[in-house]
Amino acid sequence: MTNLVETLLTGDRLSLSRLLTQVENGTEPGHSALDELFVHTGRAHLIGVTGAPGVGKSSLVNKLALHLRKHSQKTIAIIAVDPTSPFTGGAVLGDRVRMRDLAGDPGIFIRSMATRGTLGGLAHATAALTQVFDAAGFDMVLIETVGAGQAEVDIARLAHTTLVVESPDMGDDIQAIKAGILEIADILVINKADRPGLEHTERSLRGMLEMAHPVRHVFHHHGRTEVLASRSADSDQMKPTWIPPILKTIASEGIGIPALAESISSHAQYLAESGDWHQRERFRLENEMDALITASLSAQFRTDLPAGKYDQVFNLVLEHKLSPGEAVRALMNGRRT
Amino acid sequence: MTNLVETLLTGDRLSLSRLLTQVENGTEPGHSALDELFVHTGRAHLIGVTGAPGVGKSSLVNKLALHLRKHSQKTIAIIAVDPTSPFTGGAVLGDRVRMRDLAGDPGIFIRSMATRGTLGGLAHATAALTQVFDAAGFDMVLIETVGAGQAEVDIARLAHTTLVVESPDMGDDIQAIKAGILEIADILVINKADRPGLEHTERSLRGMLEMAHPVRHVFHHHGRTEVLASRSADSDQMKPTWIPPILKTIASEGIGIPALAESISSHAQYLAESGDWHQRERFRLENEMDALITASLSAQFRTDLPAGKYDQVFNLVLEHKLSPGEAVRALMNGRRT
Repeated sequence: MTNLVETLLTGDRLSLSRLLTQVENGTEPGHSALDELFVHTGRAHLIGVTGAPGVGKSSLVNKLALHLRKHSQKTIAIIAVDPTSPFTGGAVLGDRVRMRDLAGDPGIFIRSMATRGTLGGLAHATAALTQVFDAAGFDMVLIETVGAGQAEVDIARLAHTTLVVESPDMGDDIQAIKAGILEIADILVINKADRPGLEHTERSLRGMLEMAHPVRHVFHHHGRTEVLASRSADSDQMKPTWIPPILKTIASEGIGIPALAESISSHAQYLAESGDWHQRERFRLENEMDALITASLSAQFRTDLPAGKYDQVFNLVLEHKLSPGEAVRALMNGRRT
Repeated sequence: MTNLVETLLTGDRLSLSRLLTQVENGTEPGHSALDELFVHTGRAHLIGVTGAPGVGKSSLVNKLALHLRKHSQKTIAIIAVDPTSPFTGGAVLGDRVRMRDLAGDPGIFIRSMATRGTLGGLAHATAALTQVFDAAGFDMVLIETVGAGQAEVDIARLAHTTLVVESPDMGDDIQAIKAGILEIADILVINKADRPGLEHTERSLRGMLEMAHPVRHVFHHHGRTEVLASRSADSDQMKPTWIPPILKTIASEGIGIPALAESISSHAQYLAESGDWHQRERFRLENEMDALITASLSAQFRTDLPAGKYDQVFNLVLEHKLSPGEAVRALMNGRRT
């Protein structure tokens, strides 16, 4: 076991910082550290927080972290992912401003991360950072992402609980861009709930929620409000189901934060009781194994092929002289001879 | 060469129907037919038409097909994909109603397809049907999909040209659900343009378009209207660029259909001149080859493993006793010994 991993496990913050950097950079010591840390992971509650720029996610995350620290024993890591979008100009994450609120508490650790390479790469790097925090013993990891693309969806899939944050004054265009992510929302938050347009936003979200969760349309029969009940037992089976609630907050004033913390805790309980926590973990690990196996086999396959063979065969496909199926069979056979 | 393939290539419609069924069902004769047909493909212009239920896609597709038949020599195949969504209740495709308009013309062939299995499966089956139509000599294949999910995005990626259809009276909720697909729209159509709300819908689409195509924000400097010019040369390079136009139609009355046909034809020309047609084809075939190679290697790998070995190792991962990386290395080594 390397020294950094050992000291990390004793709670050393400097080792944590160094390991996070190694892991984020994807260096070889980072990879082996992840292998060593894996046996110490699987306990942290991973919480994704996403929403368009300007809805007040950072403020919400700060206030939530402060509240949790004050009212529980839980330690909290925050990963702020900034995809530096070319059209938002890249939000400044303002870690220093945050630090003023959260600094001095050893039970909170903030790490920001910029986009590097492909979107898949970003989600992969974020997953790796959560592993480090998990192994370091943090009870909750809040993963904050900006934007509305596939990256957010991928990152949200890492999380046990996904919060989607809206605000009333963002206009239809911005809300629209976010719609796809509703399908993965466990909790919806309308922040800046004192702004005009609250009712419209709420109605709009309710409508989209009903579309995004068609399996729950059985609840339509019981009236609209029950569709959005925060939790309900499916009458056909004993397994509890989760209906995403819509919560209202004014993060700048701390309003609605206790109810949000409560809802996150209810969701964790739901995940444990329904078996979804274990199921998500199983699914995530299966995918990771598959990806590693595939990458390893493909790399080996290309190494084993004679130089130029792939291009030669692929050109025949491009010229429509060989079908993709025939080409692959030719390559497979070529490897064996 | 099997008899069905031979007769298909002579233009026999009964062989076409039978082959489509074999291919859609994924049977072994279907697979080998696709291999044989591949050398005859690569000529058809594939056009995806997508949009929320109720915007009038079928009517638009019918009128477009009739117009193209009347004013060109082109033969047209229509694939209507109906994902029978549990929350739309599954749109009735009304092939018989369509047939009244389009029947008797041997230059038009309509095929509807219901969701089978996974979403990937649907996109895969749709791709296979387009191959058959392409080989059968159809000049254009119109692929009509209902809904707003990953399936539509996958199917749209098959197409050379993607039309996204909206209507003014669908309300914000429906438009919102469609937003993600704007990124892949080549042509935006506001159908039912005589309904109230046209201006709002148009403004909303313009806003979303600008967000969805950030690389084109250079055009902002030239004023808003130019962002939406149907075609523009990038000043920095000679390669032509395509800015998705927003067209207005009233399909039920045939209004706007000639302009739409014109725009589709311009897009085909753009694809040819810019090299994008070839590039999309190359990208699509590379992906298909990769998927086949990966599937083949993975299947071989699992066959080569001793029985129970994978589950045994994966259980250690689930128990956090072995990292996914270590597990995969163990499996790779186990295969060799």
